[in-house]
Amino acid sequence: MAYDVNNIFARILRGEAPCVRICESDTTLAIMDLMPQADGHVLVLPKEAAIEIYELSPEAGAACIRTVQQVAAAIRRALAPDGLLVAQFNGAAAGQTVPHVHFHLIPRWAGHELRPHAREMAATEKLEELAGRIRGAL
Amino acid sequence: MAYDVNNIFARILRGEAPCVRICESDTTLAIMDLMPQADGHVLVLPKEAAIEIYELSPEAGAACIRTVQQVAAAIRRALAPDGLLVAQFNGAAAGQTVPHVHFHLIPRWAGHELRPHAREMAATEKLEELAGRIRGAL
Repeated sequence: MAYDVNNIFARILRGEAPCVRICESDTTLAIMDLMPQADGHVLVLPKEAAIEIYELSPEAGAACIRTVQQVAAAIRRALAPDGLLVAQFNGAAAGQTVPHVHFHLIPRWAGHELRPHAREMAATEKLEELAGRIRGAL
Repeated sequence: MAYDVNNIFARILRGEAPCVRICESDTTLAIMDLMPQADGHVLVLPKEAAIEIYELSPEAGAACIRTVQQVAAAIRRALAPDGLLVAQFNGAAAGQTVPHVHFHLIPRWAGHELRPHAREMAATEKLEELAGRIRGAL
């Protein structure tokens, strides 16, 4: 399958679609998931065009995990969840909905079920408020 | 919480408990999950003693994702799943059952539900057979 240069993450990376930003480096971008499975659900994207982890270069993989570790620490400081799920889906059969590699960082609170994946849009003010707290803890 | 030097992964890393090995480097070990959620479920462990991703050094994080990418490619070549889930749980609230950082690589086949996490032991011969196929594809 060829990389779709118009997938939503490619458009966000080119600045053609809006996002609620957490942090950006030369090689990665971290943004709020617009349909969060829990409060503080962040996505880490490589800037490299890759659909699945198999195509991702080792360098881009290393850059992703570095950002994942930095944002995970910030989420923990900002939101103090009971747990944190890091997940990366390859293929529709694994739950991938956008054909550009991305790592989910999903805070977990004991007794709170996750909301369904990619289902319901969050209010922008709520995303901005959470993003501000996470950015402040980076 | 202090790192428990007798957790099962620490014991496996010291060679004190058995495992079905996929590959080993100076910094990581990849083994079959003994209670797999799907056929070909592999775990990637850093050798560094860290309970959660927050304590893991950036170097160990980079080593883990490198091994994850190598094993993911081998699983794909060996088993040709429809998808592959990569997941890393921090804290019991996120589903972590062993207090040593580990990355799950779980093949997905369309229409097949995952088996429950950390519930049922697989037959050793079955694990060895799958591990042999994955090792052969590294």
